[in-house]
Amino acid sequence: MPINIQRADIDQMERFFRTNLINSLSGFKSVNLIGTTDSNGTHNLAIFSSFVHIGANPPLMGFIQRPLSVPRDTYNNILQTGYFTVNHLNKEICHQSHQTAARYPVETSEFEATGLQPFFSEKIPAPYVTESHLRFGLRFREAIPIPLNGTLLVIGEIEEVFLPDGCLSTDGFLDLEAAGSLTVSGLDAYYETSRLSRLSYAKADAPLSEIPVTPLAK
Amino acid sequence: MPINIQRADIDQMERFFRTNLINSLSGFKSVNLIGTTDSNGTHNLAIFSSFVHIGANPPLMGFIQRPLSVPRDTYNNILQTGYFTVNHLNKEICHQSHQTAARYPVETSEFEATGLQPFFSEKIPAPYVTESHLRFGLRFREAIPIPLNGTLLVIGEIEEVFLPDGCLSTDGFLDLEAAGSLTVSGLDAYYETSRLSRLSYAKADAPLSEIPVTPLAK
Repeated sequence: MPINIQRADIDQMERFFRTNLINSLSGFKSVNLIGTTDSNGTHNLAIFSSFVHIGANPPLMGFIQRPLSVPRDTYNNILQTGYFTVNHLNKEICHQSHQTAARYPVETSEFEATGLQPFFSEKIPAPYVTESHLRFGLRFREAIPIPLNGTLLVIGEIEEVFLPDGCLSTDGFLDLEAAGSLTVSGLDAYYETSRLSRLSYAKADAPLSEIPVTPLAK
Repeated sequence: MPINIQRADIDQMERFFRTNLINSLSGFKSVNLIGTTDSNGTHNLAIFSSFVHIGANPPLMGFIQRPLSVPRDTYNNILQTGYFTVNHLNKEICHQSHQTAARYPVETSEFEATGLQPFFSEKIPAPYVTESHLRFGLRFREAIPIPLNGTLLVIGEIEEVFLPDGCLSTDGFLDLEAAGSLTVSGLDAYYETSRLSRLSYAKADAPLSEIPVTPLAK
């Protein structure tokens, strides 16, 4: 028999129990490091699991920023400089990436604190993570308030992309398993993945078929 | 050497190539079936991969609705009835779930078209998917326009949850791997997962440790 939890049960849960449960419910999530720089030149790195695809043309991506009831370094830096980087996690940097969530003093760079190495492109005034395989840089476009709970949807426009060899397919699909990208569940559980199926465009009058994943030649 | 893609390259890409690439970039995504009912009593089922956790107290979840330039059955039904269900995918229903994306006539229920079975709770006037292991029902709260590209952030408040035995942990964490939930990359690639690590709350002055995943006794 499935377990049934009613809303009144949720409202009465111990705070951390509820946070773990509700954060797990939406399903597996993307998990990325956001790199930013503040006006003093300190490089900030923070882990986020609330990314969402907004659109492909123009290429827009968003993430949910928690309420501004305490200082939020990443968000403040994005407003100040207008740019941020997004860096996928992989197995080798999972612990260091999780550690960026610790509360360091604002003058301490998470790069120094965790040992991750910053990398700079010519275009984006924010640090990439050298050890991340799949990275892209965004220009800040808009922060949309969510009055229901004081969060914000922060949206950026993709300006450049760095991909590892072998993960870009002939039709634009990225093989994230080959790139070693991780996924997260809840606040703290990291997972590797294994592809079951890539399915053709669904049509009402035709059966589905498998789409091959063919790496683009160099 | 990593592949570098500049914004001008993205803007000049063939449309489907760009769609595949940008949809893959954010990382692995949750993938869920949304169940709704229209004013004629027809039950609709549609696959979405744009869910995002908004907050735990109150328990809020959102998804990105594509522009309303064509009729959007799921969104229209949510506005009409005020409710929707979210149902995790698993391996056994992966093909049927993907097939719900086909363009069926509005009077055709995706349940009938795909063979998935509707299930109703006493509380939510929208169908759950019987074959899904992990399901929850939401009350519509707000649709926030995203003027940059005409999409909407649709937010619901969780009213009830159905979980399979063995996936709820003593601290509220859900073991989605044990529940058989899938994750998706891009538009069409489905993955199983394997947990690497569950890491303790990060502190500036203490090393990380592994958190055990202990199922709650029945």
